[in-house]
Amino acid sequence: MIKAAIIGATGYAGQALLRILTEHPEVDVIHVGSRSYDGKRIDRVYPLYRDILDETCRNLSVSALAESADVIFLALPHGIASAQVDEAVLDKTVIIDLGADYRLHDVNIYEKWYQVKHESPDLLSTAVYGLPELHRTEITETNLIANPGCYTTCSILTLAPLVKAGLIDTDSVVIDAKSGVTGAGRGETLANHYCEVNENIKAYKIASHRHTPEIEQELSLLGETDMTLLFTPHLVPMNRGILSCCYAKASVDLTTEKLADIYRDFYEGEPFVRFVGNVSPETRWVKGTNFVDIGVNVDSRTGRVIAMGAIDNLYKGAAGQAVQNMNIRFGLDERTGLNSVADFPV
Amino acid sequence: MIKAAIIGATGYAGQALLRILTEHPEVDVIHVGSRSYDGKRIDRVYPLYRDILDETCRNLSVSALAESADVIFLALPHGIASAQVDEAVLDKTVIIDLGADYRLHDVNIYEKWYQVKHESPDLLSTAVYGLPELHRTEITETNLIANPGCYTTCSILTLAPLVKAGLIDTDSVVIDAKSGVTGAGRGETLANHYCEVNENIKAYKIASHRHTPEIEQELSLLGETDMTLLFTPHLVPMNRGILSCCYAKASVDLTTEKLADIYRDFYEGEPFVRFVGNVSPETRWVKGTNFVDIGVNVDSRTGRVIAMGAIDNLYKGAAGQAVQNMNIRFGLDERTGLNSVADFPV
Amino acid sequence: MIKAAIIGATGYAGQALLRILTEHPEVDVIHVGSRSYDGKRIDRVYPLYRDILDETCRNLSVSALAESADVIFLALPHGIASAQVDEAVLDKTVIIDLGADYRLHDVNIYEKWYQVKHESPDLLSTAVYGLPELHRTEITETNLIANPGCYTTCSILTLAPLVKAGLIDTDSVVIDAKSGVTGAGRGETLANHYCEVNENIKAYKIASHRHTPEIEQELSLLGETDMTLLFTPHLVPMNRGILSCCYAKASVDLTTEKLADIYRDFYEGEPFVRFVGNVSPETRWVKGTNFVDIGVNVDSRTGRVIAMGAIDNLYKGAAGQAVQNMNIRFGLDERTGLNSVADFPV
Amino acid sequence: MIKAAIIGATGYAGQALLRILTEHPEVDVIHVGSRSYDGKRIDRVYPLYRDILDETCRNLSVSALAESADVIFLALPHGIASAQVDEAVLDKTVIIDLGADYRLHDVNIYEKWYQVKHESPDLLSTAVYGLPELHRTEITETNLIANPGCYTTCSILTLAPLVKAGLIDTDSVVIDAKSGVTGAGRGETLANHYCEVNENIKAYKIASHRHTPEIEQELSLLGETDMTLLFTPHLVPMNRGILSCCYAKASVDLTTEKLADIYRDFYEGEPFVRFVGNVSPETRWVKGTNFVDIGVNVDSRTGRVIAMGAIDNLYKGAAGQAVQNMNIRFGLDERTGLNSVADFPV
Repeated sequence: MIKAAIIGATGYAGQALLRILTEHPEVDVIHVGSRSYDGKRIDRVYPLYRDILDETCRNLSVSALAESADVIFLALPHGIASAQVDEAVLDKTVIIDLGADYRLHDVNIYEKWYQVKHESPDLLSTAVYGLPELHRTEITETNLIANPGCYTTCSILTLAPLVKAGLIDTDSVVIDAKSGVTGAGRGETLANHYCEVNENIKAYKIASHRHTPEIEQELSLLGETDMTLLFTPHLVPMNRGILSCCYAKASVDLTTEKLADIYRDFYEGEPFVRFVGNVSPETRWVKGTNFVDIGVNVDSRTGRVIAMGAIDNLYKGAAGQAVQNMNIRFGLDERTGLNSVADFPV
Repeated sequence: MIKAAIIGATGYAGQALLRILTEHPEVDVIHVGSRSYDGKRIDRVYPLYRDILDETCRNLSVSALAESADVIFLALPHGIASAQVDEAVLDKTVIIDLGADYRLHDVNIYEKWYQVKHESPDLLSTAVYGLPELHRTEITETNLIANPGCYTTCSILTLAPLVKAGLIDTDSVVIDAKSGVTGAGRGETLANHYCEVNENIKAYKIASHRHTPEIEQELSLLGETDMTLLFTPHLVPMNRGILSCCYAKASVDLTTEKLADIYRDFYEGEPFVRFVGNVSPETRWVKGTNFVDIGVNVDSRTGRVIAMGAIDNLYKGAAGQAVQNMNIRFGLDERTGLNSVADFPV
Repeated sequence: MIKAAIIGATGYAGQALLRILTEHPEVDVIHVGSRSYDGKRIDRVYPLYRDILDETCRNLSVSALAESADVIFLALPHGIASAQVDEAVLDKTVIIDLGADYRLHDVNIYEKWYQVKHESPDLLSTAVYGLPELHRTEITETNLIANPGCYTTCSILTLAPLVKAGLIDTDSVVIDAKSGVTGAGRGETLANHYCEVNENIKAYKIASHRHTPEIEQELSLLGETDMTLLFTPHLVPMNRGILSCCYAKASVDLTTEKLADIYRDFYEGEPFVRFVGNVSPETRWVKGTNFVDIGVNVDSRTGRVIAMGAIDNLYKGAAGQAVQNMNIRFGLDERTGLNSVADFPV
Repeated sequence: MIKAAIIGATGYAGQALLRILTEHPEVDVIHVGSRSYDGKRIDRVYPLYRDILDETCRNLSVSALAESADVIFLALPHGIASAQVDEAVLDKTVIIDLGADYRLHDVNIYEKWYQVKHESPDLLSTAVYGLPELHRTEITETNLIANPGCYTTCSILTLAPLVKAGLIDTDSVVIDAKSGVTGAGRGETLANHYCEVNENIKAYKIASHRHTPEIEQELSLLGETDMTLLFTPHLVPMNRGILSCCYAKASVDLTTEKLADIYRDFYEGEPFVRFVGNVSPETRWVKGTNFVDIGVNVDSRTGRVIAMGAIDNLYKGAAGQAVQNMNIRFGLDERTGLNSVADFPV
């Protein structure tokens, strides 16, 4: 059994992770970490665990946990992980960081977008960007996995085949993304108040969301060219799910059918990518699962490609992908603990 | 492997059943039945099954399926099952009926409340009311299991310890229940339209809902006295879940603590009943699970007991309980295929 | 023009009041009071006022405002008003308090349920309970109007004709009420977080909600007998609206039709009470209006009456009723500024 | 008083229109038209009208109503109006068509996108596109006003200043729009079922929505150049509101500040356009009002403009704008009956 520790287990992503690991046949959760709920039973924080999980939240450090844990998941606000992970920790255990600290290879870009000093920039070259569809092999060989952001996972996977095949003008990409409210975390803010979110839609962080450089980094690497793109997130009155609608100018002659074949080929054999054709994917069909559903269209009138992807932000966008990364790193079948079927309508 | 057939697999309850059975380790689904979608792939009806279930809906009869199926689940509107099930069928297979046709022992009560003629009243004495917490042994011995209604499951289990112990005036019971919209089915009606349900609450079928006689029958048997009670259902703008708030006049001196002990004793060892104390259960903590969460209070000011239960109407209120009944009937561990942990917030 | 000041104008009830007064033809709002947003433009706090209301929030005291305001509305947490209102203030202006401080006649009951010392108990005999349907004349003659709570308004008006006519066992009343989330206020708490409220239903403050003694006081006065009743509030995932479902044992022979006549007679001529017959009122039909919609049923099987009322908690349950009280107090047509038609589906 | 008739008064747009006209000080509604509810009281169809509007739905023809009505509003599915309006009707009355039949100047484009024969193409040159901000003068002079679509109103007004001033590459425009469910009408379809819409987001009619040519027509006229653009609508789980996020490549050097000035100048004096700066407009702040709120940003990294607009689809997107057009046509103050303040949170 893999001994797993979670630091930050009571936020929405941490809790989703705890739930998946609780049901994972090869994992033993040895630490349910929480600073705010230190000493409180997890079934009092989340009554769904009543009669299921007999654990109490504790607040141990990364270095202390490294002594006994095979893997430590960090589900923390950015800027905290980079001060707690070091070479000594990585010699003893595997770190899967659900936060942003080790995602960007360039420390300057990190510090510019996050407005915080990075405390362990030397580890950036060690870290692997944990998007299995693009970096599966590297994931098997690192002790520091930077789990991608939710918007980024969805957007990168939706655009990857287009970029890889060089089918679009790389300076023409616009991503219009929509997220459910769990993406904003469990913070007690006016912005998260039921009545402020319900029956409303808005964009936010226009042309300034921190997931932008992450998307650019990965697509640039994939396309072997510098990409700058526009990313606009929206808040949708629902709990879960992200839909990314990606627009780009076709640089070659394309049809929807041709493009569909390219996507099918690109994702051939991928256990968590489903190609749905020329219709819109919908967040409801991936909810509670690790799938990304992708659909594409070519609009001959405007010469544009519309590629759309849908994920569950807490699964493929956070906890599910983290477990997928753990499975890969520990040599398990990638789908272990992740083969849930969407529960509809839930 | 148990060969299972579902008739009516594309309604919300039938689909929930299909999903549970798909993941059930001891079951092989041999028939995904649908009249409306006959000939259509199930992953076109519910795209959540894409790459998961390679089946096409068909429209076979109960008698045809009885030749090969070990168990047939019926998820049909009332009045249909009673015309299709007969002794010949029951000689060959187990029927688990999610509809109302075999729940009431008295055909006159059935015909009065449902306003339809019962086509096989002679089978009513064969049928067992499939509420495992009250009828576990009988369930192991019958080939005709009448799976209880959603409101009834929740209300009966919430009140059972009170009635059994004779702690309340049996003519004082009022049940005020609230349900999510899946309880109303998948019909294309104005009443189910998003904008007619959203941002609204209403009661319906006041003093006339068909689950009333079902609750009365079971509680009367349990309390060994004729009970007549008032049941009021409400429609809540959410997908899933039922909360039953049950009020009764205490007939003996009671405290919340004493009552809590009585509930804990009554449900000792039950795998799907969780007693939550003197707080309100909440539908979110049981969503996607087969649990019923129950809480109780005694109000000394008014001499009344408030007992509250919460279930997922598609799980413990329909498909989950149907699988629980199957597990019992076929000698499996009752929890097989039903040990999901609630996914929150979903 | 009536010069009106609002203290606490940026909570949900205060804001609803500001909006109604902004459109009221006989009112000039001279003070938009807020401690938290002191110095901030109201159209920055609530962008709906952009290009409509050119006002800045300020934080003046009751005594300062009494010099210039004809009426001061207090929309404050309980315990604050009682320390700010005194005889000197009441000599100069009319106070309409949307909080709880002056609603209960008995200071002991207030201090027991609210767990706070009342700072001006001598004013309790001056205060009039501002439910126009029961106290219209007294409202015209007082300078201290205690605007009723939301649950109480709905519950009292739903039960009043039954109690007045002596048709029920007064110790048999159970009120099961459901409220939208604005009823919980605009506080930044986990309990108000979108994902904690959405897709869930729960009861809360079981047998202990502070609106209970308020309902009992008014119904006891009306029925000329001491009434003790059970009140259970629920939180429903929607923004606005309260539905009260009231149960009581009939003490005389009743039919639904007879009861309907009694209700129609009782509320004859009332501008804001609509009797809807034997169906459930629905919150959507009163949203954004000052109406209470009431329906009744007699269940002959159990000898029980079911009376149901629906209001908009921010209108008839708070701001609308406050304006109705102001209209009465200042000799205006009661409906002035309150004749909006529900906007559906909103 | 203007005598107004509504044909199609029981759909969501028709009902919104009826509500606004009921409160309009210069209008007398002489006909509440409905084919489906012919003979039924409107307060039975929409109980919000109880004690407010004492009218019965009838099913009179355009030509019959033309004899007595000063203005006839048509809120019908496309293809119906074009068969009922003719010169004789237009000689007697003013037609304000909320449907699509008279919006497009080119009958071929209409027939291609709507796949139906136009029955009165000769009237297309008479019809005025009823977007007051662009065609106010022409509206005063016509008897056939084609009220714009909801998406189109929002998208055109959001982009108009950019196009008029020639600041963008006209072939670079991408509109990503999001709508509440009332936009899909009141039809009893599976797609409108609460549980199919709730907790989900999807795009639909990708690169093929019928509002596309309407947007192109108006922006082409305004920019004096042929524009072809990409329009993608999305369905959001909420009742009301549209948010259009419009992207375009800047063709000149721009800053957010400069662009803000251009927008402010362009809409100077417009009663229903509010410029909100560089933040996202939000549908909640315009709900129940005729406002369009617009915000803009220039992203210097990508050289792109992001212009966002928000409307209430039933107000500025349908009924409100229809009344605005009526006001203009009949010489009233444009704001008459349309000065409601958003009710929040509703």
